[in-house]
Amino acid sequence: MTASDFQLPIWFDLGATFAFAMTGALAAIKRGYDVVGLFFLALASGIGGGLLRDALFIRASSTALLTNPAYIYVVLAGVVAAMALGSHVHRFRRVIALIDALGLGAYACFGVQKSLHAGLAAPAAVLVGVINAAGGGLVRDLLTGEEPLVFRPGQFYVLAALLGAVTFVFLVVQLQLPGTMAALLATTLTFLVRVLTVSFNWRTAPIAPTDALPPAP
Amino acid sequence: MTASDFQLPIWFDLGATFAFAMTGALAAIKRGYDVVGLFFLALASGIGGGLLRDALFIRASSTALLTNPAYIYVVLAGVVAAMALGSHVHRFRRVIALIDALGLGAYACFGVQKSLHAGLAAPAAVLVGVINAAGGGLVRDLLTGEEPLVFRPGQFYVLAALLGAVTFVFLVVQLQLPGTMAALLATTLTFLVRVLTVSFNWRTAPIAPTDALPPAP
Amino acid sequence: MTASDFQLPIWFDLGATFAFAMTGALAAIKRGYDVVGLFFLALASGIGGGLLRDALFIRASSTALLTNPAYIYVVLAGVVAAMALGSHVHRFRRVIALIDALGLGAYACFGVQKSLHAGLAAPAAVLVGVINAAGGGLVRDLLTGEEPLVFRPGQFYVLAALLGAVTFVFLVVQLQLPGTMAALLATTLTFLVRVLTVSFNWRTAPIAPTDALPPAP
Repeated sequence: MTASDFQLPIWFDLGATFAFAMTGALAAIKRGYDVVGLFFLALASGIGGGLLRDALFIRASSTALLTNPAYIYVVLAGVVAAMALGSHVHRFRRVIALIDALGLGAYACFGVQKSLHAGLAAPAAVLVGVINAAGGGLVRDLLTGEEPLVFRPGQFYVLAALLGAVTFVFLVVQLQLPGTMAALLATTLTFLVRVLTVSFNWRTAPIAPTDALPPAP
Repeated sequence: MTASDFQLPIWFDLGATFAFAMTGALAAIKRGYDVVGLFFLALASGIGGGLLRDALFIRASSTALLTNPAYIYVVLAGVVAAMALGSHVHRFRRVIALIDALGLGAYACFGVQKSLHAGLAAPAAVLVGVINAAGGGLVRDLLTGEEPLVFRPGQFYVLAALLGAVTFVFLVVQLQLPGTMAALLATTLTFLVRVLTVSFNWRTAPIAPTDALPPAP
Repeated sequence: MTASDFQLPIWFDLGATFAFAMTGALAAIKRGYDVVGLFFLALASGIGGGLLRDALFIRASSTALLTNPAYIYVVLAGVVAAMALGSHVHRFRRVIALIDALGLGAYACFGVQKSLHAGLAAPAAVLVGVINAAGGGLVRDLLTGEEPLVFRPGQFYVLAALLGAVTFVFLVVQLQLPGTMAALLATTLTFLVRVLTVSFNWRTAPIAPTDALPPAP
């Protein structure tokens, strides 16, 4: 069995879309958007990573987002879940980071698998998986003017996605595990790393800080 | 007659390009850009929505922007119009919002029509139409660091584009009106809704505001 | 010989990627990012312009970034060079602007040449070249929240790229110079204009500044 002989179930993609749509909707609630702005921020967050993957890197001739209505329903479900949760949330940043963590690993695995299918080599597939995973949150943070989680100094965010993508490739290509099991393991690992990072505020060191310039606040 | 049996005249696309190019040029004047920055902000604003439509969603194999020189002339015309207007403008934000409103409906209809032509279902076509319409303004606001009009809490912006797109689909698919007439009606409706919104400062309510967090200023 | 009968050596593209990756890495060091954020900012800066060119404008069916591993190695080399340089740099903005200038002309020529190859007319090819050249820096500045160099009022940035692209087209199409020589001349010219601009702080005048609004700070 080669790495591209399998298809991940679509609910990996849908699950990640749901999680990121929910973080987008929560970010919109936090900023006091109305229902339309909320829906479109949820949409951009939910499918942003997949759009970057399909349009910039894989160059798919069509995007499932538009041909498969399930994606819109899933975004709507994420909106509803966020609105139900919204009034009970007092620490938005932490809750958003945790839900974000759920989608991060799933998108990393799905991005890797789609890239392998498209004929990319494993290192390139890992890169696309990481961009797929980090893309939705990046779009969300850019649109709302937050400093992107992706680049926030010292947080294991992209590193967690990278770990998930590499683990998935290793389990599927080297150990020849079935794709779904490998993706579940890699997604769980990514989630745990993110939860521990957020809980214990694990931080990496900035690179070569200059004396002249303090680290960005 | 099916919804995709017709072509909207290209001046719907060109007209929207002109309007958004002009808003981009005005935003550049407001911020004190020089003539080159002004041209490129006008270009990004004018064709941003169409580029998002063609590159991310419809995946057209080529983009009219580059094969049809009319788009560049129209952007240049928008720049000239903005420079003629610029020194007489004292309330940039309102004037930009009104000219923006002219392009909003035209782009919504054109985006819907191009999507129907590309074989998308009506709901997906409406979504692409809205993104087409809102995309240019979003790009303009992101590039200049303004909070995007798209998401500004409580303004009927995306909602107006959505109304225009849905009206256009309804008139063309259900009532079987000729495409151009349907687009004119839908564009006018969108413009009126925006003008009324800006004039009377109609506002929608934010979703589930938390006590802990005031709405974004 | 027609304008599209030649191929520029790939090291024009790779050289520009290296230069922009290095500016991205330096910007990341300046802001105190960790090693992963640094790599991804370098990646986005290095290949951002090429991705915009291939995905939005030329619609290439695949992107060399993923099929040719040389691009990743070059980004990594840019990261290493930036880290070696980083602790000795005290005036980041100026150093970044100079390295940026090296990539600017090379990307302008390469973008023009790829566009001519893809069958675009000369004016459209010049436009794509300029966007190719300015795109990486634009992506870098947007991601780090700096006001984009592209639009910074009064700096000859896009104008320098435009000069390089037009010079390249003129040398190749009118004077029928060999492509590589034309590109070297055009890149050198672009670099010199940028160096002089930064050194002497040459500034253009803002367009029609209004009394009511001071130029953006």
